[in-house]
Amino acid sequence: MIAIFRYPKREQWKELMLRPSIENALIEPEVAKILLDIKQNGNEAVRRYASIFDVVSLGKFQIEAEDLRTKAREVDSKLAEAINTAYSNIEVFHKAQLHETTFIETMPGVLCWRKGIAIERIGMYIPGGTAPLFSTVLMLGIPAKIAGCKEIILCTPPNNDHSIHPAIAYAAELIGIEKIFAVGGIQAIGSMAYGTTEIPKVDKIFGPGNQYVTCAKQLVSKEGIAIDLPAGPSELAVIADESCNPEFVAADLLSQAEHGIDSHLILVTDYENVIQQVMLALEKQLAKLSRREIAAKVLKNSKVFLVKTIDEGMDLINLYAPEHLIISCRNDEEIAEKVINAGSVFLGNYSPESAGDYASGTNHTLPTNGCANAYSGVSVDSFLKNITFQKITKDGLKNIGETVELMAQAEGLDAHKNAVRIRLS
Amino acid sequence: MIAIFRYPKREQWKELMLRPSIENALIEPEVAKILLDIKQNGNEAVRRYASIFDVVSLGKFQIEAEDLRTKAREVDSKLAEAINTAYSNIEVFHKAQLHETTFIETMPGVLCWRKGIAIERIGMYIPGGTAPLFSTVLMLGIPAKIAGCKEIILCTPPNNDHSIHPAIAYAAELIGIEKIFAVGGIQAIGSMAYGTTEIPKVDKIFGPGNQYVTCAKQLVSKEGIAIDLPAGPSELAVIADESCNPEFVAADLLSQAEHGIDSHLILVTDYENVIQQVMLALEKQLAKLSRREIAAKVLKNSKVFLVKTIDEGMDLINLYAPEHLIISCRNDEEIAEKVINAGSVFLGNYSPESAGDYASGTNHTLPTNGCANAYSGVSVDSFLKNITFQKITKDGLKNIGETVELMAQAEGLDAHKNAVRIRLS
Repeated sequence: MIAIFRYPKREQWKELMLRPSIENALIEPEVAKILLDIKQNGNEAVRRYASIFDVVSLGKFQIEAEDLRTKAREVDSKLAEAINTAYSNIEVFHKAQLHETTFIETMPGVLCWRKGIAIERIGMYIPGGTAPLFSTVLMLGIPAKIAGCKEIILCTPPNNDHSIHPAIAYAAELIGIEKIFAVGGIQAIGSMAYGTTEIPKVDKIFGPGNQYVTCAKQLVSKEGIAIDLPAGPSELAVIADESCNPEFVAADLLSQAEHGIDSHLILVTDYENVIQQVMLALEKQLAKLSRREIAAKVLKNSKVFLVKTIDEGMDLINLYAPEHLIISCRNDEEIAEKVINAGSVFLGNYSPESAGDYASGTNHTLPTNGCANAYSGVSVDSFLKNITFQKITKDGLKNIGETVELMAQAEGLDAHKNAVRIRLS
Repeated sequence: MIAIFRYPKREQWKELMLRPSIENALIEPEVAKILLDIKQNGNEAVRRYASIFDVVSLGKFQIEAEDLRTKAREVDSKLAEAINTAYSNIEVFHKAQLHETTFIETMPGVLCWRKGIAIERIGMYIPGGTAPLFSTVLMLGIPAKIAGCKEIILCTPPNNDHSIHPAIAYAAELIGIEKIFAVGGIQAIGSMAYGTTEIPKVDKIFGPGNQYVTCAKQLVSKEGIAIDLPAGPSELAVIADESCNPEFVAADLLSQAEHGIDSHLILVTDYENVIQQVMLALEKQLAKLSRREIAAKVLKNSKVFLVKTIDEGMDLINLYAPEHLIISCRNDEEIAEKVINAGSVFLGNYSPESAGDYASGTNHTLPTNGCANAYSGVSVDSFLKNITFQKITKDGLKNIGETVELMAQAEGLDAHKNAVRIRLS
């Protein structure tokens, strides 16, 4: 069912690694029109589209604090405990991403420093639909809290009864998100980008979504609203040698395959037998899955590569730049040193991707579609600006002054030179 | 000549802080057409547009190593020394931005870490025209080298004789940039985004440019090529109390004003007399500038605000989110603690913006157009991906397993649960 490529030539790699192209051009004009309407007509427009797209007619968009608390209490104690554990691990890992401000005297009297300051207002979009992604509430909300964002708002599509999934309510309450709005899709992105009488404008928008949400995020980012990452379908690459457990490899591939029919998978190995055994395991495990139809479609579009060496396999993987990479090899730590392009990496036979999706502590909002070549996943950094500061004394300016004057003059910028000259004369 | 606003009401602030809007919609279709042509026809298209836009007919685009060395030697010794000093300060400040990898055991047996890995191939665009921006070569090249980028290429528009400015050659040689291409404008951005037979494709594009370059960067970023920052005209805000030196303030405002007619300035003070004296100083200094016509136009579009207190002034400045902020106040350090939105901040009477533009050590590639509310200036981080890793032991998976299974189940993702179950059973 999966296409197998044995010892493909290097000159073919680039083409073999191509993802299906994502075509937004068709929906872009429609999305742009709706965003402009929201920009101009605010809440009235948001309400109009909510009734068209979500077929609901709501009172206020904001969910009452009391309703939120009631919903949160519906989470059973075992799930609550699991969410608490995940919270704690994510918090511990992300807290270590905060850096002390370092003061550097680059020359005597020239003191420079860089300080991380929280983005004031952030918005997160949590998709509705079949799977209530409360894990994403944790993955975005915890680093936002650690960074110190003053205002965190959350938009998620309304259910028919204007309620919210208990686990989302529970996660939001843990983080302390008080402003939750039952607004979905393009309307949610437009509201957070421009602000309406009900929904506050934010400085940066985070979170996954369908192609309309993705397109809307891309369009508002052109207007100066920051967004977390260019979005694309989820991906997994597994590199495995003979020490791997084919049942585990198959389970990991399927966990990625169940996300959605546009998910993307590759398996790279230097051992023919791994291919055979993984194939058998896939068939066996697939039959038992509730989302087997989705997973089967994904497998059909997936690729297996047999390579001469694991080193060569890593070259192939770095070219692919996967969102997730599992290294199921004997010397996993040594191979991990060769990773150049990936979002998050899982080492050894007991590090399934799903551990990172939920609870190991790393973030699950990661670069997709090959963007791992230049983008990082979400971290506390994503919720901060690093502002630079400098304080120069009169003597410091004497030390640096001639350098500045000469360079300004060579660039033909008189007034830049004069700003130093006037202070020293 | 500057518009003065005395004690404006808070409800007016937002409107008063508006920048002139940047309208790319008109040029976008033309820029998109040229980019598509370059994507499809590569070098031939680049060469065609070079002959149309730059009215030059070149042999190879790449400047020969020998020519580069010859040019670099034309820099006089005093300027060379100034560039060396700037290099050293920028290097010292940026090297401190590298972080050690921290390993965190979030739970027993669950080890997570985050490692900064250089973006492999970066491209920088250095505009041509009247001012040879060799300082930008340093500001982009030095952090790229510190990060460890393997390939750094530089595109800059050709002169008539296919030569390069000596100071640009000198700066490039110091950094060790070997691939310099005499290609400008949209062609340069397209070449670096898609790659041609002569110019390599890069993973991320940096550098300033005119509205065509800016639009081209924005368009290729939609296709997954990372870019440094959304670009806009340069800006300066000065906040000054009675302790300021009005001559210095005027000199700083003018150093910003000479950049280009679209530069943007604001002065905020709590002391009427500062306004009068700065106005007088501006008039006096302006007359002596070589670029006085540009500067005069910028002053006409600039604004001065008289506020009740410096604290209120900082609220106004945080709303404006300036690229550069000079704090010319007695208690500058205390006021600097109130900065929320700014690119780079200059404290006291002896820290002119031009020091940071060239040589204090901080970066001069900064967020503009209000983006300082959510974006940071260029730093070593801009040339790195932070990749997360996790290695879980069998016992570690036992510790975390139930948490993952319960959360996966609650999100309706069977196969995610199964990837843990299969390992533990």
